[in-house]
Amino acid sequence: MRSDGRRVDQARPVKITTNYNKHAEGSVLIEVGDTRVICTATVEERVPPFMKGQGKGWVTAEYSMLPRATSVRNQREAAKGKLGGRTMEIQRLIGRALRSVVDLEALGERSITLDCDVIQADGGTRTTSITGAFVAMAIAMDKIVRERNLNRFPITDFLGSLSVGIIQEKPCLDLNYEEDSKAKVDMNVVMTGHGKFVEVQGTGEEAPFSRQELDALLALAETGIQEMIREQALALGPIAERIKGASHAARS
Amino acid sequence: MRSDGRRVDQARPVKITTNYNKHAEGSVLIEVGDTRVICTATVEERVPPFMKGQGKGWVTAEYSMLPRATSVRNQREAAKGKLGGRTMEIQRLIGRALRSVVDLEALGERSITLDCDVIQADGGTRTTSITGAFVAMAIAMDKIVRERNLNRFPITDFLGSLSVGIIQEKPCLDLNYEEDSKAKVDMNVVMTGHGKFVEVQGTGEEAPFSRQELDALLALAETGIQEMIREQALALGPIAERIKGASHAARS
Amino acid sequence: MRSDGRRVDQARPVKITTNYNKHAEGSVLIEVGDTRVICTATVEERVPPFMKGQGKGWVTAEYSMLPRATSVRNQREAAKGKLGGRTMEIQRLIGRALRSVVDLEALGERSITLDCDVIQADGGTRTTSITGAFVAMAIAMDKIVRERNLNRFPITDFLGSLSVGIIQEKPCLDLNYEEDSKAKVDMNVVMTGHGKFVEVQGTGEEAPFSRQELDALLALAETGIQEMIREQALALGPIAERIKGASHAARS
Amino acid sequence: MRSDGRRVDQARPVKITTNYNKHAEGSVLIEVGDTRVICTATVEERVPPFMKGQGKGWVTAEYSMLPRATSVRNQREAAKGKLGGRTMEIQRLIGRALRSVVDLEALGERSITLDCDVIQADGGTRTTSITGAFVAMAIAMDKIVRERNLNRFPITDFLGSLSVGIIQEKPCLDLNYEEDSKAKVDMNVVMTGHGKFVEVQGTGEEAPFSRQELDALLALAETGIQEMIREQALALGPIAERIKGASHAARS
Amino acid sequence: MRSDGRRVDQARPVKITTNYNKHAEGSVLIEVGDTRVICTATVEERVPPFMKGQGKGWVTAEYSMLPRATSVRNQREAAKGKLGGRTMEIQRLIGRALRSVVDLEALGERSITLDCDVIQADGGTRTTSITGAFVAMAIAMDKIVRERNLNRFPITDFLGSLSVGIIQEKPCLDLNYEEDSKAKVDMNVVMTGHGKFVEVQGTGEEAPFSRQELDALLALAETGIQEMIREQALALGPIAERIKGASHAARS
Amino acid sequence: MRSDGRRVDQARPVKITTNYNKHAEGSVLIEVGDTRVICTATVEERVPPFMKGQGKGWVTAEYSMLPRATSVRNQREAAKGKLGGRTMEIQRLIGRALRSVVDLEALGERSITLDCDVIQADGGTRTTSITGAFVAMAIAMDKIVRERNLNRFPITDFLGSLSVGIIQEKPCLDLNYEEDSKAKVDMNVVMTGHGKFVEVQGTGEEAPFSRQELDALLALAETGIQEMIREQALALGPIAERIKGASHAARS
Repeated sequence: MRSDGRRVDQARPVKITTNYNKHAEGSVLIEVGDTRVICTATVEERVPPFMKGQGKGWVTAEYSMLPRATSVRNQREAAKGKLGGRTMEIQRLIGRALRSVVDLEALGERSITLDCDVIQADGGTRTTSITGAFVAMAIAMDKIVRERNLNRFPITDFLGSLSVGIIQEKPCLDLNYEEDSKAKVDMNVVMTGHGKFVEVQGTGEEAPFSRQELDALLALAETGIQEMIREQALALGPIAERIKGASHAARS
Repeated sequence: MRSDGRRVDQARPVKITTNYNKHAEGSVLIEVGDTRVICTATVEERVPPFMKGQGKGWVTAEYSMLPRATSVRNQREAAKGKLGGRTMEIQRLIGRALRSVVDLEALGERSITLDCDVIQADGGTRTTSITGAFVAMAIAMDKIVRERNLNRFPITDFLGSLSVGIIQEKPCLDLNYEEDSKAKVDMNVVMTGHGKFVEVQGTGEEAPFSRQELDALLALAETGIQEMIREQALALGPIAERIKGASHAARS
Repeated sequence: MRSDGRRVDQARPVKITTNYNKHAEGSVLIEVGDTRVICTATVEERVPPFMKGQGKGWVTAEYSMLPRATSVRNQREAAKGKLGGRTMEIQRLIGRALRSVVDLEALGERSITLDCDVIQADGGTRTTSITGAFVAMAIAMDKIVRERNLNRFPITDFLGSLSVGIIQEKPCLDLNYEEDSKAKVDMNVVMTGHGKFVEVQGTGEEAPFSRQELDALLALAETGIQEMIREQALALGPIAERIKGASHAARS
Repeated sequence: MRSDGRRVDQARPVKITTNYNKHAEGSVLIEVGDTRVICTATVEERVPPFMKGQGKGWVTAEYSMLPRATSVRNQREAAKGKLGGRTMEIQRLIGRALRSVVDLEALGERSITLDCDVIQADGGTRTTSITGAFVAMAIAMDKIVRERNLNRFPITDFLGSLSVGIIQEKPCLDLNYEEDSKAKVDMNVVMTGHGKFVEVQGTGEEAPFSRQELDALLALAETGIQEMIREQALALGPIAERIKGASHAARS
Repeated sequence: MRSDGRRVDQARPVKITTNYNKHAEGSVLIEVGDTRVICTATVEERVPPFMKGQGKGWVTAEYSMLPRATSVRNQREAAKGKLGGRTMEIQRLIGRALRSVVDLEALGERSITLDCDVIQADGGTRTTSITGAFVAMAIAMDKIVRERNLNRFPITDFLGSLSVGIIQEKPCLDLNYEEDSKAKVDMNVVMTGHGKFVEVQGTGEEAPFSRQELDALLALAETGIQEMIREQALALGPIAERIKGASHAARS
Repeated sequence: MRSDGRRVDQARPVKITTNYNKHAEGSVLIEVGDTRVICTATVEERVPPFMKGQGKGWVTAEYSMLPRATSVRNQREAAKGKLGGRTMEIQRLIGRALRSVVDLEALGERSITLDCDVIQADGGTRTTSITGAFVAMAIAMDKIVRERNLNRFPITDFLGSLSVGIIQEKPCLDLNYEEDSKAKVDMNVVMTGHGKFVEVQGTGEEAPFSRQELDALLALAETGIQEMIREQALALGPIAERIKGASHAARS
């Protein structure tokens, strides 16, 4: 049993509030336990310079934590005048993961920026951001498809993410902050609705891990992420059907 | 009648949710119409270098907007690598205003940082931040007073803020974004519970204003701000009584 | 009586030396007591990106202090690698104030940058900058009007500025540095030649102020600023007549 | 067969030149194919502020590429004024990986900084940096142990790294730049001499990967990395024996 | 004959106004032709970290140009967020040159910062800054000697500077901006009152120069700089005698 | 006799390895004693904005030291977020020196960037960079001439550089780091193959120098630099002949 009473293979409760922001083309407030992230999707009718003239779109992400998202206040990166390494690593990860399920040709020369702002942190902020950003992106995509009459839905599969780790020799799913601090091995996994891996990032700074441990962690992640994807589908309602259709088409 | 149906002397509905963040010593989500700001108060047992050894505390503020708080996405200041002039101006204003009702000697050598993060903007973000930050600060002060056994409550009066402006020759209270864009004169006013002025910042870039217009704007602000202060007192419950006590003591 | 022997309603002596710089299109050295500011106006035949294609001009300002303008040396902002909040606040104020008396359509798609460099500071550097920058701008405008044959003089009124404050309960005009440090309330006022307000920025961080005090301060400012405007007119000679003509035309 | 004639399970030739720099406490020039990295280890008798007073040491890394390490010249990060996200991600990875085999207590309150400067790049610069930095660190550790009479050798195991990826459906070991550009899946693996995983970072931005593919990639990495570790041992000579001794002691 | 009627060996008129700034420990406004520089000397009772505990003082310089010191407006380095290469090169030169005639032991553990701010530029701003900064420094030194009862005057010799260059094959003294733009060879020379060289910086980017040309330029510089030093002595009055005394003592 | 046994007029051994980098259009590893610099030349078919449309090319340089090029580790300028004054001064010098022997018209509208990265420092890094960068540039020029069929070889003369200095009253050639630290006078000289001066930068911060000392230093530099140029010619082989041809043509 874990400190908050969960089983080792049990994720925290998830709550996804769609259309949380009145300005953004897509938005959610996602809560996984006490971790809360606002994800907004912004559509712009232009692509970055390195993508120009290829007839393809672009998806990118930015990540930030409010100073008091954590138990000790963090100095703002805007005040420091630069982004930290952790922030850059996370926002590169989010963007890369989302692009893996986007059909950039179908999107056309426009870009979607996913802003993931952590308003309260309790472990798993990067995986929660990915899961939430996917939903915000899907809402924005649906808006584009309807307003611009795209002939393909530009999302090819669902995408969810969770962390796993080894605490006192036991592989556990979805670590909270307290658990994360004690874990010897920490792994973030991103998977598609069809159960393929998009990102596997495992780190054993405290203690290297064996192949068997790796296998156990991946198995936990697989089950947990499919549960996250079911929550995404519920939150998306009819849009979920469009993703499933596009996903089916992409595979046939 | 205004575009959203309000009378010229009518502020938008206010909603103050206290203890919105589980980590901060004080926190609120404040909503004034569609403007939503998270204010957290962080207490630290140290003061900035220029205040050291004086036996006095310090109160300061930081302000930021999420990129998609606005209808068009703004680039993050952390990504630009510097704070803009508007941000600095606003956070200096918030800090200065709050300090005007704090008894820094009573606070002792500790500091309170108020983080005001606008998660959705629709005009009046700086005045809403001041009104919300006051409540977050009061909650944090109450915690300090109880935990450290201070012998004076370090807040000497309530503090609220609203904007006023002239739209099509008519002085109006609490402009939303659309109104703010059309206003010829724009003024932010900060006042205490006892009806004194802490800040008066009026700007007539579009059209200079006469003394009579100035008088009409100040009158609107006075009434509106007292209403905001009544909302603060409701949200604070028993803490409001402590402020009133301290305020009474400070004046006798 | 004040520490330098002035009456409460008496400003310090003003001296405006025009054409102080041989390169700039307009320039002055303005001295208000021991506060000395070099103001230069630079005309460029282009406008910032956000103003392009509107057929209108732009006026902006930058403000800086030499490191030893003050009694203790200040580190250069160029060495720190960023502009401070105070600098940004002041240069935004100067630009906004000047634009309030400029007919941007009459100016046409060109921009004027006013550089206000404080070479010696003794209180009132922002109000002195505004008063001096107006004169430098007027000289540059006159040059543009003559060289480009504009059919309207693009300045619609005079513009002057002074500070006022409350020292030991007494409202006083034009505070020097020593007075400014002791003042409980500090207010900067910008007014036009026709006696309208362009900016009113009053701050009571040390002690909130009542409506009566505010009224007394505004009255002092009104009289003092008209005196500053008379000095501007003397310094400008024949150009002053052109401003009066344009001002009269703009009102009829 | 691959474009350079290698088998899918064949790494490029490795060459490790020790003591390449006369100033550093440890240094190598490591070449893996045409990828060349200078790794230097700097020992300092102090630790970063967050480690002070714990009686433990610290190991950290910095990574950079010369502007013309690549076929197209890259602008220097020093000229841009900030480190890019890729650089930060890589140097965090190198530091974390090295620390996993360091006994920080045995090291004592001193720090080792590994500088990895890529002077020519042809794929695999981060894995080559880890493999080379390990050798430079071991040389520096040996120097510390001898000069300060430490009673334990502070390295607990060997550490090597290689990339693997899927090119045209085929899992391949040690991708060069051309292969890396074409790979659908790209994975960097760091392992110890005892065959445990320290980092597994797999990315399928172009195409998600199945569990079987992941298994095949990990198997390739395991074999290849043990070969890299044999090269490290050869280059280290007698120091290799000390690592083996410490490694053995740590496990018994 | 040169464009402004001077002989090839004739410097422009020099004017040195001492005590130009009421706050600084030493200050001048120096004018060499139309080049005008304000030099202030700031004394602080501390030295930079790398000089601590050596019982010696430090002298350093900063250099800047007002944006409109030149015929085309330059962007402020504070706005750009960094110092340019030219600025750094010049301020390093000024500091180094001044230190060559300062007895840092006699100065004791305190530092003098020379701020050289060019308010109008017409060629020779760095040499004018050196000549002016020497005078400001001497005034500040005299103040220190008197107030702290130093037993040696910490300046060991006079120090002046001028530029020389080759225009249309002719070596010329003290180039103005127009001449500087046309010069094939440009050289800045700093010399002591006793005729020794402190800095010789000659550049032939446009055309390499022969040994004979170099000799002719040095001869011109020698004569011109001694004239500058006579002007310094006149401006310094009795302080000049103290420098001469210290200079004599240092040589016997 | 000097600490490393050299005569006062003897430079350290020089070794120039051409084509050290497989990507760059020209490259060398140059070693002068223990000072080692990688110089790469990058050709781009564009010029900086200020050179556009003039039908001329541009040559520029960047300089950097690896953190552990020196006996004490230096913080990276990329990590500090800005280039230091020394770096900027050196890279401006290298670029200026190289341009003095380039026929920018013959080069055409393209630019060459010389990156000089010091991988090990032992005095004379800037002069070694100039000597090495010249060779890298010549190789790149030869490539341009052949590939673009230029009708003139765009280099008009050889260019070499060495330092000289006064150690214990003795003028010496090519100071190593230990000597440089003790030298009272330090001078960097850049000369052409025809024996003309391109840069003379002498500094006597520790002790001003007389005209006779200056003459002795220049004489040493002249002889030493011609020796460096002979080494360049050997390293360049047939390309050296093309430079001689162009140099002869430029003079007739």
